[in-house]
Amino acid sequence: MHDTDELRAWLIAMRTPGLGQGGLREALAAAGGRIDAVLARLYRQAATLGEGAAAWLDAPDEARLAADLAWLAEPGHRLLRCTEADFPPLLEAIPQPPAALFVAGDSGLLLHPQVAIVGARGASPAGLGHARSFARALALAGYTVTSGMADGIDGAAHEAALEVGAATIAVVGTGPDRVYPRKHHALAQRIAAQGALVSEFPPGTAARPDHFPRRNRIISGLALGTVVVEADLRSGSLITARLAAEQGREVFALPGSIANPLARGCHRLIRDGARLVEEPVEVAEALAPAARALGVELAERLARPDAPAPTRGGGWRDDPDYRRLLDALGHDPATLDELAQRSGLATAALSSMLLMLELEGGVAGLPGNRYQRLPG
Amino acid sequence: MHDTDELRAWLIAMRTPGLGQGGLREALAAAGGRIDAVLARLYRQAATLGEGAAAWLDAPDEARLAADLAWLAEPGHRLLRCTEADFPPLLEAIPQPPAALFVAGDSGLLLHPQVAIVGARGASPAGLGHARSFARALALAGYTVTSGMADGIDGAAHEAALEVGAATIAVVGTGPDRVYPRKHHALAQRIAAQGALVSEFPPGTAARPDHFPRRNRIISGLALGTVVVEADLRSGSLITARLAAEQGREVFALPGSIANPLARGCHRLIRDGARLVEEPVEVAEALAPAARALGVELAERLARPDAPAPTRGGGWRDDPDYRRLLDALGHDPATLDELAQRSGLATAALSSMLLMLELEGGVAGLPGNRYQRLPG
Repeated sequence: MHDTDELRAWLIAMRTPGLGQGGLREALAAAGGRIDAVLARLYRQAATLGEGAAAWLDAPDEARLAADLAWLAEPGHRLLRCTEADFPPLLEAIPQPPAALFVAGDSGLLLHPQVAIVGARGASPAGLGHARSFARALALAGYTVTSGMADGIDGAAHEAALEVGAATIAVVGTGPDRVYPRKHHALAQRIAAQGALVSEFPPGTAARPDHFPRRNRIISGLALGTVVVEADLRSGSLITARLAAEQGREVFALPGSIANPLARGCHRLIRDGARLVEEPVEVAEALAPAARALGVELAERLARPDAPAPTRGGGWRDDPDYRRLLDALGHDPATLDELAQRSGLATAALSSMLLMLELEGGVAGLPGNRYQRLPG
Repeated sequence: MHDTDELRAWLIAMRTPGLGQGGLREALAAAGGRIDAVLARLYRQAATLGEGAAAWLDAPDEARLAADLAWLAEPGHRLLRCTEADFPPLLEAIPQPPAALFVAGDSGLLLHPQVAIVGARGASPAGLGHARSFARALALAGYTVTSGMADGIDGAAHEAALEVGAATIAVVGTGPDRVYPRKHHALAQRIAAQGALVSEFPPGTAARPDHFPRRNRIISGLALGTVVVEADLRSGSLITARLAAEQGREVFALPGSIANPLARGCHRLIRDGARLVEEPVEVAEALAPAARALGVELAERLARPDAPAPTRGGGWRDDPDYRRLLDALGHDPATLDELAQRSGLATAALSSMLLMLELEGGVAGLPGNRYQRLPG
């Protein structure tokens, strides 16, 4: 099956009215993961799927499909399907995972250990400051910051990660070609260029209120843990936190003054069992075992000869920065600061490179934020 | 045994060097609670108690004892001994309870259901405001506010309780005749007049650093629960909270901004299991079952014919305010506000009177802060 034919089949299936990602997942499971078999089955069952589905399958909107394919053909754009080896295992593990994601940017980032930082749109200046300092510190600690690109806490977290030269992942509730809120147009472009912009909704999808809770399950599902910075009691961030807990992920909440209404949501989370955190290092340390387990799982995937390599990491061994890092590492344990001094590389770049080396088994992370080169 | 002789025996025993309140308790237990038998035993064992004890028992400082007795002879002053029926049962239940307390003011208050409100001496203006609003609301809800009369949170809590016309209990780390800090001189006088000032240290005892942790166990031990408002990580309030937890009492902590160093202690308590509270009503509701259990225990004591009645409550039935309250109650459930309207009495006075009626079994507290007169 030709690549474009396969993509076209996915797009037809994903856009089939009433099928949904859950229905598509079921159909894929029944068809052994083959999208052409799924489509053949959908055509056979068209009558039972309802009028809308039958009409669409009978005469799909070719202009729409052409536009989808044109979006996917742009550089750095991709449909990341659950049938592919680099579909993020943490997202695969959630209840009702998406069948595929539209990605603009580096889809390999979705395999990185992530921390979701979310919170109020109308955050206080102090809350925005906390979002920035947590995002900055967690990015420098080697975590990729994932959020929803909303106004307030989300945007502050993305921006702070970008400012320290780290990648960041935005999961949006619109099509990947739309930006909501509009004021984040430039931010969306920077995220796609320096990180990844992700959506389960196809190009052209406008913002709809019911999209945001669905989007939230992907934010929490991609991440090892979710940090809520400021949230009132009706905030969507509480939904993200609840989903994270249901997905078995850690939930962290920043306390605040009892006089601050935007601390109410965080306090409710803490009462319900979320971890009260005052410092980013508490998040980094709490998630370290899960990050290591994720690394082991990915390393095992890489070791399987039939598994396609993640999109990032393959060419690193020939990279001059990578060679500078290995030279700087030598054969004794070294801290990030020492490596930065020896190699002249930025700590953000270093921590990202060290993570890839850890995943590939070339480097071991030691207590006290030290790293050691492994033999072989 | 004449009253003054008995008090003198207590004072000699309490002031015996090296005996301590624990030693005195043991001696009392061995002597069937009779202080003259305790003293006889101490004289017999004087040699084994050490030089200081032997010297003191051989020739006690008569001027000191006379001063103690003179202090106790002043109106409203009392030595509340563990052998007396109105020694507070909650304090009796703690590890290493004091053998006796010097009390200036209404010692019957020590039987009231109490909430300890403690915190930093160098509290922020917001922290002082929280202490005041919690003290005010809990006093109006019928709890007596207990604290350490220290600068900052303690003083603010006492003052707020007094301002709404409620009683308050100060447990001090000096003799009951000394005031520390000095700026709280007027406050100490108001507390003794409108509440109770309590110490396990005899008159003349100066402030000593090791007295304050000992004092703290009495604050937490008198109260059904302890609320920590603001505290840094080295605050004595954390000791009070730890003692409260060890005594099986509830610990409450107010969260604060992660940028506020005085929230650190509260956050540590919350991580260690203290209940995060934003509103005084949460404290009042959490302690309501324990307050009811205390009321039942005291009512049972009162029902025992040989038990002396608590110092307060006896003469109430002849009090015109008390009759106005009973008239206002009628025979249907009524709220505090309704009773205030009908009787013209202040809510603070009403809640205190209702508590006494509840303890005596004349009134039942119902859900929704309503009260109902009971038959008989």
